[in-house]
Parts: sequence; structure tokens; C-alpha cells
Amino acid sequence: MRTDAELAAQVMERIDALAKISEDPGRLTRTYGSPAMRRANDLVAGWMRESGMTVEVDPIGNLIGRYRAAAPEAKTFLLGSHLDTVRDAGKFDGALGVLVALACIQKLHSGNQRLPFGVSVLAFADEEGVRFHSSYLGSRVVAGTFDFDDLKRVDSEGVSLREAILRFGGDPDVLHGARLDSKQLLGYVEVHIEQGPLLEIKRLPVGVVSAIAGQSRISAGFNGFAAHAGTTPMAARRDALAAAAHFIVGAERLGRNTAGLVVTVGEISVQPGASNVIPGCARLSVDVRHPEDTVRESSCEALRLLGAEVASERLLGLDESLLRAIAQSQSPELSATLKGVSIKCGLLWQVVQSTSSVQCSTELTALLKEATVQHVPSVLEIPSGAGHDAAALAAITPVAMLFVRCKDGISHHPDESVAEADVLVAIRVLGRFLELLAKKHA
Amino acid sequence: MRTDAELAAQVMERIDALAKISEDPGRLTRTYGSPAMRRANDLVAGWMRESGMTVEVDPIGNLIGRYRAAAPEAKTFLLGSHLDTVRDAGKFDGALGVLVALACIQKLHSGNQRLPFGVSVLAFADEEGVRFHSSYLGSRVVAGTFDFDDLKRVDSEGVSLREAILRFGGDPDVLHGARLDSKQLLGYVEVHIEQGPLLEIKRLPVGVVSAIAGQSRISAGFNGFAAHAGTTPMAARRDALAAAAHFIVGAERLGRNTAGLVVTVGEISVQPGASNVIPGCARLSVDVRHPEDTVRESSCEALRLLGAEVASERLLGLDESLLRAIAQSQSPELSATLKGVSIKCGLLWQVVQSTSSVQCSTELTALLKEATVQHVPSVLEIPSGAGHDAAALAAITPVAMLFVRCKDGISHHPDESVAEADVLVAIRVLGRFLELLAKKHA
Repeated sequence: MRTDAELAAQVMERIDALAKISEDPGRLTRTYGSPAMRRANDLVAGWMRESGMTVEVDPIGNLIGRYRAAAPEAKTFLLGSHLDTVRDAGKFDGALGVLVALACIQKLHSGNQRLPFGVSVLAFADEEGVRFHSSYLGSRVVAGTFDFDDLKRVDSEGVSLREAILRFGGDPDVLHGARLDSKQLLGYVEVHIEQGPLLEIKRLPVGVVSAIAGQSRISAGFNGFAAHAGTTPMAARRDALAAAAHFIVGAERLGRNTAGLVVTVGEISVQPGASNVIPGCARLSVDVRHPEDTVRESSCEALRLLGAEVASERLLGLDESLLRAIAQSQSPELSATLKGVSIKCGLLWQVVQSTSSVQCSTELTALLKEATVQHVPSVLEIPSGAGHDAAALAAITPVAMLFVRCKDGISHHPDESVAEADVLVAIRVLGRFLELLAKKHA
Repeated sequence: MRTDAELAAQVMERIDALAKISEDPGRLTRTYGSPAMRRANDLVAGWMRESGMTVEVDPIGNLIGRYRAAAPEAKTFLLGSHLDTVRDAGKFDGALGVLVALACIQKLHSGNQRLPFGVSVLAFADEEGVRFHSSYLGSRVVAGTFDFDDLKRVDSEGVSLREAILRFGGDPDVLHGARLDSKQLLGYVEVHIEQGPLLEIKRLPVGVVSAIAGQSRISAGFNGFAAHAGTTPMAARRDALAAAAHFIVGAERLGRNTAGLVVTVGEISVQPGASNVIPGCARLSVDVRHPEDTVRESSCEALRLLGAEVASERLLGLDESLLRAIAQSQSPELSATLKGVSIKCGLLWQVVQSTSSVQCSTELTALLKEATVQHVPSVLEIPSGAGHDAAALAAITPVAMLFVRCKDGISHHPDESVAEADVLVAIRVLGRFLELLAKKHA
């Protein structure tokens, strides 16, 4: 029987083995339905069987390993995460959660231990949504919240999701049958890298997730008026990029002044986009996240008002100066003409996505904290700013999450890194959690 | 003999005739060396001959019409502008200056009037530099400041300027011989549309140019650190776009607070440029113009300091918050780690072009003002924020410029518009200017 430390070392080896399975040479990319995904599923299925689990693949390609309960009629507890990756990915995002869960089952299996409930380890086939720009494809099938319109989505080569499921050996017509029965479930716990710097700052190997933040994605734009950079005086400009810059500064201030809020402008483009032309329009993305939906929603409204204020302030500022010039010229005719020119630096504001936050189960989180406090000096509760399969599973069962520290907060990048010592703590915490849960259901 | 009003009407007709000569169907585009340019030259050459001028084409394709002086040994005064256009151009930029000059010669010719100096009307073959991304190709040949390295420039189809000159019927090997002799010249006056809104605001048909602004073009960049938009707290970010936004706001403020200064950020791009990733770097163009070189240079330095300040302020702000977190974690080891993470939001600053301003001749400008004041209520002296052939001609002879009001300050656009009544004023002012100059040289 392996020690916890040996199990942690094995997780690191398996992480490396999975990282070698890629559809891109020289970097890690494993998208839904790819041959790499098939090989990753096959490799993990083997490990599942070695740990005494029966293995099945559901109609979308999720890999499910079942470790049976002490009694045949018992309910099931779910563990897991995903096996797909982003392009040029790190090797821990997703895979770590599957492998830490497997390590805990391996420990039970080698000790011939059965729990008062079955444990299923779910290895989801698509969480990142890279190929079809989708979200939680795998876990939504299990949760019964799969959107069947998504079957029409096509990848960059024109292959539909329906076709991709068929080619992957699945069956798009029976996806609804793959929904797990809520009444048979006790809950879902997912181990995942933090993808942020808080555990590192607090010097803790793991932390407990309080909630998965809701997210609003907004497409914003400022419409000004393109004009010659050399001949248009500052006071007569309707510079859309300058308006956008004022907005970005204000949005950052709102984020900094609101606890738990993150606001990000990650994309920006200007038209016409020449060095000697004042930008006539600027488009930008605004990403807003907070663990409490009411705070996120009021922040979005504050941002919309900020955008409108920036647009109208700049308009008023301009009018004042033009009005002075017009007063000097004493021409009502010109005044009328200039009013025509004064195209408003208007605001475009379109909410393109709005996802509610998911609160983690108080009960499961309490057990997870109890397990954690036995292995680390203090328990940090962290809201998750990123989405996870747990958010989808919450539709059918209580969920909780354990975050593992990652180096420099870096993820979705080859530099993604987790210390073996932290993996050891995660295995111990999850193992202890299962023991505590078993006691409760004894 | 035509009246001034008839000459203005004729200028408008000729503007329309030239606007029909284009290399693009449905829009006006006339670039160097194109068949359209050849036809425009031929049409204008015919008008020159009708006005009693002898016509030649110099080795790069500039069209030169000569109206001889009263005495054979007299010096020459130069008038003119350019016949090439930007893509999808307006019809007045360039052509107006050539045609107003021609109208004045036509008037002299029909009155059998000779001046104590010859007058040459120069119709330059390339001012806009669209085809070869060059500047003042035509007028620099006349001024003897042509850069022979430019002959190696290639257009978008791989044709070199050398080849284009040959195909246009010119001779790239004798360009140096086309330099006009400074000692034989009395000066150069160019009529041009304002391309800005000041004359319209001041309700004046024409204005006198005080100087052609110098220009600095800077390629700036902020280097931050790309990170997950959901999991990276505001206080732990190195958002390169937020830094750029602070810079743009400050640059606009500097422009507004400095008389005569224009500062424009016309291009911006961020990396990686995804809605859910904090920008790790932002690149932007900065265009700075002022009629006085010392002001432009000190403004560029102020902008560079602003950029450095924004970069370091954001760094300090971040360190304070990180230091608090580090103090809480009480770990000198982590403190060291985080110092490694704290990649400075550094500034890149590269001056890619710096062009000195050109002061207009005090003497010629005084005469132009004297001529102007006889036809308009007041004389507005305007610095030109855009470059003109006059800037190149200044290398060999005193220059002055007359700006004509254009609607809404719009140019380089099909909406470019000049009123016939303003063309009439321009003809009268330029005609009066020649009379005043003739008196002086009588």
C-alpha cells in the first residue's frame, strides 16, 4: 500500500504522462473530440480500473469511474474535474482534480475499504470549450442542462458538435439519458488549481472555495468622430479612444474600491486606427465578476452609467469650447452648422453574457474545512473568479471545491506549476473529507 | 475677359472634371504614376497652355507651367500645389491650389498683363505619398532634397519607385537636375484647403498660415503581466491597458492645456487581446504637433515622463497592497518570490519620426495678409497642423500659404467641400498678392 507521499509523486508522474498527450506538437492542447482526448481518456480509464473502479464513457465522451459502496443500494458521491485543455496549456488545470480524486480511490481500494456510499470519479470531456466556444459541455450533459442547440455549433473547420460527438464514438441523440439522477447523489467535490495568487500570498497549500463568481460580459463602444490629427484642435475633438481611456480608468477604480469585484477590459480596437487620425470609434470588452450576483449587477449598472457619463461629459466639455468660439463668431447660422457636426460621443452597451454565481454547499464546505484544518495552519475561503464544472453540477447536487496553490497565480500557460508538497496536502484533505463524510453517513 | 466670379465658377467646374479622373471606379483615388495621374496632368497642361503658359514635365512627372515675365532676365515666383490624392479622397485637397493659381494666371493672360517676374505654376506629382509611403516626392525633386534611397521603395505590387518613374515617362537618373535654382526664385505661395475647423468657427473664407507644424511620431508601449481576468484580484494586477488608459487621459490633458499643441493616440493594440485575460502589453502610437519646435520637443519629453510616471505609479500602488499581504503572511521567502512576479509595468518609448516646423516667410506672409485684409473682415493667422509641399519648397525659397475654409473641417474624405464664394475670395486674394508683389519688384 502506497503512502500519501508516494501517491502524490504518482499524481505528478501521471500529470506529466497526460501532458505528453497533445494534438499540437511541442505544446499541450487537448480539445474536445480530438484523438489526443481519446488517448487521454484511455490512459485515465486504465488507471481507474487499476484502482478497482468500473469504467464507462457517457454519450458525449465523459469518462466515469465507479467505486462501489459497501452496500448495493447506497447513494453516490461525485468527485472529478476535466481532461480537456486550452491551447498551449498548463498541465495541472483539470487533470489535477481527476488525479487527486483517483489517488484517494486508489488508497481506499488498496486498503480494501468501502464507504457507505459509492464514489464516482468524473473526468469531463470539455470544460474549456476551446473547439466549439461552448461552456461546460461535459458537465452539463451529466447535470441534464445541456443545450441541444449547441449540437449545431461548428468548429473552425466547419465540423458540427453533433458530428464531433459521433466521430468521438458518442451519441448526440441520447445525451439526455446521461443525466445523473439527483436523488441518488450526495454531492460533488472538485479539486482544482487556484489560477490566482491568493493562496501564494497567504502562504497556504490549499483553500476552500466559498462560491463560484457570477460573470457579466459586456461589449462596449464609444462613438466619436474621426478627424485629422494635425489640423483638429484639442477642443474640437470627439476622440473615441480618449473617451474609452477615461472609462477604463474609472472601471479600474470601481474594481479597486469594491471588495471582491474584478473588472477587466481585455480587448480594445479603434477605427480607423491610423497614427495620424483621431479615433472615430473604440470598441472594448468588459468582464465583470463577483461572488454575489447583486454586487455584480449593481457594478454593471455603475459601469454603464460611468460610460454614459464619460460620453456626455466629453460632449459637454466640447460644446462649451465650441460655444465660446461660436459666441465669438456671433453667427446663429454657424452655430446651427456646428450642431450638425457635433456628433455625440455616444455609448454602445451590450450585455453579451450574464452567468449567475453558484454558492458552494454550506454542509459540504464545512466538512471540507474540517478536513483542511487538520493539514494546514488556517483555512482560507476563496471565491472562485473562474468558472468550473462544479458550477454546472450545482444544478443537480450540492457542490464544494478545494483550491490548490499554483505558482505566481499563472494558469492557461505552459508555466502553470503546482508543488508536489501541495498535491500531497490535497490528497490528504480530500481523503480526510471522504472519511468525515463516511462517518456522517455511517 | 472673365470676371473673378466666372473664374471661381470655372475653378469649381475644373475641380469636378479632375475629380472624374480616378484609378478607382466610383471614388476618387489618384496616386503617383497611375494612368489617372497622367490624364490629370494632360488635362491641367491643356488649361495651362490656354492661359498662355509654356508647359513642361520634370523628370519625376511634376507639371510646370511657365508664364513669362515682362523682361527676359527676370526672376521667377512659384505658385502651386499637388494633383495626386489619397484613396477615396475629397476633390479639393491639392487640386484647388493648382487651379486657383491657374485662374490668376488666366486673368493676367487675358488682360495681356506681364509682371516684373515670371510665374511658374507647379502641379506636384506626389504629395500624399500613398503609393510609396513617401513624403513630398514631387516637391522634394524641385527643392533638390529628394532622397535617392527612396528609389528603392516598392509599392504594394512590388514595383519600385525607380520603375514607376520610368513607366510614367520620367527619368530617375536625372532627378537632381530638376532642382530649381534658388537664386532665380522670389518665393512660393500655396493655396490649400484648411483641413481643419478654425476658419469655419471664425466665419472666415480664407486665412494666412503662420507656420507648418513640426511633428513627432512616437511608438509607445506599456509592459504589464497577462493574467486571468477572473482570479486575479484588482490589487495584484499589472494591467498594461489600464496603464495605457492613464497615459491617454494625461496626454489629452497636456494637449488641452498647451496652446497650439495637438496630441493624438490614433492606434492601440493589446496582447493577448482576449476578453477574459488582463492585457500583458499595450502598444500605441503618439502623434505630437506644434508650430514651435521647442514646445513640441518639451511636450514630447513631458509625455515620456508621464508614461514613466504612469508605469511606476502603478507599480508602487501594486507593491503597497502586495506588501500588506506579504506582511500578513510574514514570509520573507514569499516576499522574495513575489518580487520576481512583480514584473514592472515598464514603458517602451521610441521616437520614430521627428520633423521640424517650417516658419512661413515674414515678408511674403505680410503681403498675403495685406491682400487678404482687402477682401475679408479680419485676417486669421493659422498654424498648419498638416504637412504641405510648401514645407519642402522652404529649403530653396521663402514660402507662404493661404488656407481656404472647408466644410466641417473634413478632408481626405469624399465629403470634403469648399464653397464657390470662398474660392472667389481665394482668387481675389492671390491675384491681389501678385499685384502687391509686382509693385514691390517694379
